[in-house]
Amino acid sequence: MDILNIYNPIKMHFGRGVINEAGNIAKKYADSVLIVTGKSSMQKSGTLDKLLKILKNAGIDSTVFDKITPNPTTDDIDAGADIAREKGVGLIIGLGGGSPLDSAKAIAVTAKGNIPVWNYLKTAAIEALPVITIVSTSGTGSEVNKYSVMTNPKTGEKPGFGYECMYPKEAIIDPEIMVSMPPHVTAATGFDIFVHTLEAFTGKMKNIFSSAYCMQAFCLLEDNFVRAYREPQDLDARSDMALASALAGLAIDMSGVGIMHALEHPMSGNYPNIAHGAGLAGLAIESMKYNLKACRRDFMLIAHHLGIKRMKRSEDEYAYSLIEKTEEMLASINLNIRLKDLGVEKDKLPKIAKEAFTTMGFAVQNNPVTVNEQDALMLLEASY
Amino acid sequence: MDILNIYNPIKMHFGRGVINEAGNIAKKYADSVLIVTGKSSMQKSGTLDKLLKILKNAGIDSTVFDKITPNPTTDDIDAGADIAREKGVGLIIGLGGGSPLDSAKAIAVTAKGNIPVWNYLKTAAIEALPVITIVSTSGTGSEVNKYSVMTNPKTGEKPGFGYECMYPKEAIIDPEIMVSMPPHVTAATGFDIFVHTLEAFTGKMKNIFSSAYCMQAFCLLEDNFVRAYREPQDLDARSDMALASALAGLAIDMSGVGIMHALEHPMSGNYPNIAHGAGLAGLAIESMKYNLKACRRDFMLIAHHLGIKRMKRSEDEYAYSLIEKTEEMLASINLNIRLKDLGVEKDKLPKIAKEAFTTMGFAVQNNPVTVNEQDALMLLEASY
Repeated sequence: MDILNIYNPIKMHFGRGVINEAGNIAKKYADSVLIVTGKSSMQKSGTLDKLLKILKNAGIDSTVFDKITPNPTTDDIDAGADIAREKGVGLIIGLGGGSPLDSAKAIAVTAKGNIPVWNYLKTAAIEALPVITIVSTSGTGSEVNKYSVMTNPKTGEKPGFGYECMYPKEAIIDPEIMVSMPPHVTAATGFDIFVHTLEAFTGKMKNIFSSAYCMQAFCLLEDNFVRAYREPQDLDARSDMALASALAGLAIDMSGVGIMHALEHPMSGNYPNIAHGAGLAGLAIESMKYNLKACRRDFMLIAHHLGIKRMKRSEDEYAYSLIEKTEEMLASINLNIRLKDLGVEKDKLPKIAKEAFTTMGFAVQNNPVTVNEQDALMLLEASY
Repeated sequence: MDILNIYNPIKMHFGRGVINEAGNIAKKYADSVLIVTGKSSMQKSGTLDKLLKILKNAGIDSTVFDKITPNPTTDDIDAGADIAREKGVGLIIGLGGGSPLDSAKAIAVTAKGNIPVWNYLKTAAIEALPVITIVSTSGTGSEVNKYSVMTNPKTGEKPGFGYECMYPKEAIIDPEIMVSMPPHVTAATGFDIFVHTLEAFTGKMKNIFSSAYCMQAFCLLEDNFVRAYREPQDLDARSDMALASALAGLAIDMSGVGIMHALEHPMSGNYPNIAHGAGLAGLAIESMKYNLKACRRDFMLIAHHLGIKRMKRSEDEYAYSLIEKTEEMLASINLNIRLKDLGVEKDKLPKIAKEAFTTMGFAVQNNPVTVNEQDALMLLEASY
């Protein structure tokens, strides 16, 4: 056994109606908060208003920063940090999907320092304002880990970063908030869970703890993903998808991601309209074929947890059945797509391949099979 | 989904030689420490001397409190707390098996207050000195959870208690320390892991997270328990048993224990020479038979994770195969024993049954099948 360090200090609260605890939870940290959210979905669903009321009843003064777009930019994060500083808030609440939660963590770091957020790619952060996450989707995992992904709007670069001080203090994970997710969001975010589990379970940094989370998440996905897609109001399915998202988020917090995330980040960095999960859907099948040779046993184990019977299949055939199962899953959620369907231009593929190495090198390194820039380009072309 | 709260803030460090990091880890918290340990094994194995050297090299001043006996008493804990206060130490290091680690946590709480440790059964503790655990056995789980078990030497009562402030800050889990465990200790502590996983996996407070840990722990036990017992120097088996102990310790931190622990605590409380794991061994089979009716599916799942093939067995037979497997396991480690073999007097059984309810009520409550005092006495008699 090599040295293995395991740590995740977040207090997680799961359950229907647990958002009602937001006031009691927040006031342990501060009486003045900045709520970081997007432009529309939390307003439309009424969740933002509900949260504001809950905080007000707890005597907490709230400022709303609702400028976060999908694939949030460094400009937005720096602007949010300016407001947090001006208002002197003592707590950041991220409300929404991956983009607002990532931004909340980045704003919490940036508000404590005097440098733009982009500089934290090179300068380690040692302190941040406390953060509470209130997640509205099931997929990002950002609700329970330290990572933040940001896009540089000038260059299209989309790196991730994370320091110990960026762990949210508490995570409020309420499936009632998730029923407002439209099916295409359930599909894209749910597929993000699948890729988190797949990449954490097969990556070079895999360990006993992350694998335990992943195996449990695979079982939950098998029982609930397509159900949550087809029946958005099914609270049991939503609850289990919320648990799967957290398990997968904890797994990548320890064991990282791989080539699919390494390629998807520069893709949606260059094309901000691509939803992260949809980008992953376009990349998954070819990436799995590429990794198959190093992952035969892992793929067989995952196939087992996804309920695929072995029958009389050889080991190779059984391992390959996971790829077929993934194709079926993508078909069931209408995400059996290619990169050209996502609006990616073919002549941008070399730039995307290059940026996987410059901004997502840690994910490339963690992939079970070695990847060079030419391999990455080949994978993108095969997925086009 | 009911409300589910998940939290464990401990930094865990696993690996061969990771004890060498003890100085760097300790000096983040204090430059003066109290080492809480037993009377002999850490001295004989040289681990205490090694730790003292490592701490000295990091500029840390150490005081050794080596009065901890198996089934540590409230008197010893209060005496340790007095020394911590007198010396003004800033950190408690627990070194050894479950008894010194439990005592370290109890001393850390008591040193901060002005009341004897027994009072913390009723008075919630809100602060404690920071604690680092350095575990020498694989079984207690105390290295990674907030619980402490203590014995009242006047009454024989042996309750557990735990508050959020009692979580160790960091846990140093080095399999090289564990090779000095003699086989009978490997057997008793390893069986404690098995019972932790069994009770957390079947208890009323079971959840998705603790179950994930338990399933992983069952796989590790199947591959390594008997191997570590037969080949004490096998570092791979020791490493995996150390991981299993931590997984099971995290599982009971969330999901508690059941009737076996509820009965064993008053038993070894009244007979301090009984090793906790040996006491559990005497109680396991009858307790599993008692719980079988509520645990059929769980027992089948555990049987699967322990590598038992279903063959043509009915569900009832397959569930029962776990009990047969447990008997085999106990035979392999020479712990197929009855309570009378442990020196328990038959006329003490009613007192033990009664104390399960007065000092371990939370564990009785968590048991999958309801137990009253008469049932408890019947279980003790059947195990005699």
